[in-house]
Amino acid sequence: MKKAIVLLSGGLDSAVTVSIAKELGFQVAALHLNYGQLTQEAEFRSFNSLCKHFGISETLNVDINYLTQIGGSSLTDTKMTVGDAVPDFEGIPNTYVPFRNANILAIAVSWAEILGAEGIFIGANQVDSSGYPDTRADFFEAFEKMVDLGTKPETKIKIYTPIIKMSKKEIVEVGSRLNTPFELTWSCYRENEIACGTCDSCHLRLKGFEEAGITDPIQYDN
Amino acid sequence: MKKAIVLLSGGLDSAVTVSIAKELGFQVAALHLNYGQLTQEAEFRSFNSLCKHFGISETLNVDINYLTQIGGSSLTDTKMTVGDAVPDFEGIPNTYVPFRNANILAIAVSWAEILGAEGIFIGANQVDSSGYPDTRADFFEAFEKMVDLGTKPETKIKIYTPIIKMSKKEIVEVGSRLNTPFELTWSCYRENEIACGTCDSCHLRLKGFEEAGITDPIQYDN
Repeated sequence: MKKAIVLLSGGLDSAVTVSIAKELGFQVAALHLNYGQLTQEAEFRSFNSLCKHFGISETLNVDINYLTQIGGSSLTDTKMTVGDAVPDFEGIPNTYVPFRNANILAIAVSWAEILGAEGIFIGANQVDSSGYPDTRADFFEAFEKMVDLGTKPETKIKIYTPIIKMSKKEIVEVGSRLNTPFELTWSCYRENEIACGTCDSCHLRLKGFEEAGITDPIQYDN
Repeated sequence: MKKAIVLLSGGLDSAVTVSIAKELGFQVAALHLNYGQLTQEAEFRSFNSLCKHFGISETLNVDINYLTQIGGSSLTDTKMTVGDAVPDFEGIPNTYVPFRNANILAIAVSWAEILGAEGIFIGANQVDSSGYPDTRADFFEAFEKMVDLGTKPETKIKIYTPIIKMSKKEIVEVGSRLNTPFELTWSCYRENEIACGTCDSCHLRLKGFEEAGITDPIQYDN
């Protein structure tokens, strides 16, 4: 059975991505990253519940707290504040963690070379995303080329971004069709117990469920 | 004054790379990585001595021990053995740490975005190197393109590989001309106190000094 690594933060998008990877016939290994984000605890709890639910036995949980040492993002720097969602905001919000996806994917590639995995799935999304530069399709294409040049000749690793062009509504619909356990996922940028309901990430999630006409099973504070 | 990050392992190549970056007029910030390598202690000692020597005040020392969790290299896996140098060996030796340079460069880019550094210098070398896929010029070119796509629009970071096409002899000669303090550097893959003199890395270093007609100031066991 062909093997793929899925980057599983524990959020809605990454959980739906696991469902898609399994639907495509991959045996899934799951990679989780702690990078000193405010909601590290909630995300790791979701990661574990999701792995159990999906029957994933190969897991790797990596600390990359150097992103906190480096700072510069409201997700990793407690001196900065995670703002509320701003409709029609243009530009890159302060939740942007510099070059995070490249750091995460590089780790996944190292692990993939050892596991013999043929694919890496990442639930990045450029439609309803927050304007982060490292969530765009052309970035992932450039990354895949770089991987091909920087690994052993026999290593062939494809970067899969199955939900990159979906709206949050479509992600919820696909997840619903594939029975993704939404109740186990965590999306909030701010809290660890009850989702705030007002940060960028909660806002996008709630809008997606609403537009899909599906009830979000998790609890919100607001 | 324009700023650049230099990846400074503490080895000969990276020390000469600092000399070159300074010669080119960059204010240097130094990034060091601990990844559970056998000679972590010796390398960090050299890193500190070199920063002091070069007057580098912006430093970042990052633990990426996940490379040990991932394993698969004799440099990070104590169950594997670092072999002696094999003349004319073809292929990739077991000291290859899967995709290490991409991991390291991704960290450097995250830091560069925060520091506002315009360049990242890496002392990779494809001539006298050990055949690692992630030390080739085309890999670094692909990496630079990926960086351009994955960072903020205003971020422009160039990846400098000034010694990539030099032989070890030439690296020693350039270092000698620029007064690189060879006596502070550490190259051995095996030991932390006195260099073994027989591993791949010691072998290449000794050959380089010999061909340059310059005495290597460090001590060897063999």
